[in-house]
Amino acid sequence: MMSGKIKARLAELGVELPEAMAPAANYVPFVTLGNIVYVSGQVSSGSDGLIVGKLGADMDMLQGAAAARSCAINLLSQVQAACGGDLDRLVRVVKLTGFVNSTGNFTDQPKVVNGASDFLVEALGEVGHHSRSAVSAASLPFGVAVEIEGIFQIR
Amino acid sequence: MMSGKIKARLAELGVELPEAMAPAANYVPFVTLGNIVYVSGQVSSGSDGLIVGKLGADMDMLQGAAAARSCAINLLSQVQAACGGDLDRLVRVVKLTGFVNSTGNFTDQPKVVNGASDFLVEALGEVGHHSRSAVSAASLPFGVAVEIEGIFQIR
Amino acid sequence: MMSGKIKARLAELGVELPEAMAPAANYVPFVTLGNIVYVSGQVSSGSDGLIVGKLGADMDMLQGAAAARSCAINLLSQVQAACGGDLDRLVRVVKLTGFVNSTGNFTDQPKVVNGASDFLVEALGEVGHHSRSAVSAASLPFGVAVEIEGIFQIR
Repeated sequence: MMSGKIKARLAELGVELPEAMAPAANYVPFVTLGNIVYVSGQVSSGSDGLIVGKLGADMDMLQGAAAARSCAINLLSQVQAACGGDLDRLVRVVKLTGFVNSTGNFTDQPKVVNGASDFLVEALGEVGHHSRSAVSAASLPFGVAVEIEGIFQIR
Repeated sequence: MMSGKIKARLAELGVELPEAMAPAANYVPFVTLGNIVYVSGQVSSGSDGLIVGKLGADMDMLQGAAAARSCAINLLSQVQAACGGDLDRLVRVVKLTGFVNSTGNFTDQPKVVNGASDFLVEALGEVGHHSRSAVSAASLPFGVAVEIEGIFQIR
Repeated sequence: MMSGKIKARLAELGVELPEAMAPAANYVPFVTLGNIVYVSGQVSSGSDGLIVGKLGADMDMLQGAAAARSCAINLLSQVQAACGGDLDRLVRVVKLTGFVNSTGNFTDQPKVVNGASDFLVEALGEVGHHSRSAVSAASLPFGVAVEIEGIFQIR
């Protein structure tokens, strides 16, 4: 069996998973229960640090979708850690809940969270097809644009 | 064993489940993991289309509860699809998370989400008793009044 | 095997679990699915009743963290009920989702929800280490400051 399949696919997409982020407080980044991994909410961030902004105010859709994509990358980093480094143990992205930092009249949360969903399907194929909710949050930690938590099935 | 019990009960209540809605983006409406079905957030909608509005601004409690009820109906449509059409395979509504589009000073989220909870108990009896959270969202996709996601146990 | 270990530890911390709160509506406070307990969102409350307030407006961080701590205590009350009174059956706090009633420019949700996380780790040690999301809600039921839902593994 070929190993590192998902890692290779990520490299094709130009994505190198960052070091799994430490939680911002007294909790853990993931808990594994049997073959289910519950990953803590991952905030939008990239190599330049946190991605902050509020949709409907100071951030446009493309920036928002990029922020959501970064959350998905951070989620995969945590899943990789939960899998002891071998992301090929990921069986299915089960569920994402996406919170979009937005004003009260911004209504395109789905398009923003698509930044995460599209990336996961592009990178993982069938494995990446997930159930999802996308809602607005009045505000998010540190002013980040997007926070996404996830449930993952591993082997 | 009588089949179509739940379907018959829904008919008594005058409810015909609509076609399961397609997701608004690149994800799937539900993921089944063993005997657990995770259903994507369902937005309020009826035969006339999306039910939009903001509690505390342009929508009253009764309208909000009706919107929440429509989310519950949409959730059941997805569960029916997850059960290959046989809703009698539903064992338990495990958990709902209800997001209510509301202003910052509206505090009756539970009464709104009751529109969903009351319907599920009315339609499903014991099977419909679920755990729940009800919170406000600053905004919701397409301006809908309510979005509810759910976890269901099936056989 | 010593019984009542967690109860004794709570007593050391000066915490006596209150009667598990009845839900505010037509749902149940928890649903047990195999060895997993899904606990409904618990609102901030103490011996004097509900703890109301909005972070960034009329409530400071310390008050917010105390409100979150009360949610954790209320969650444990429900878990105790789910365990038939024997909290030592709790194996792991799996996941918390914390909703903080806050203004649109308040960004310290993690510090608020730490009130719950720190308490659980202080009271339960390893068992209390959980995955978590912390987000803002535009408003919460009855105007409470914090609402937290949880997933728990029991034996």
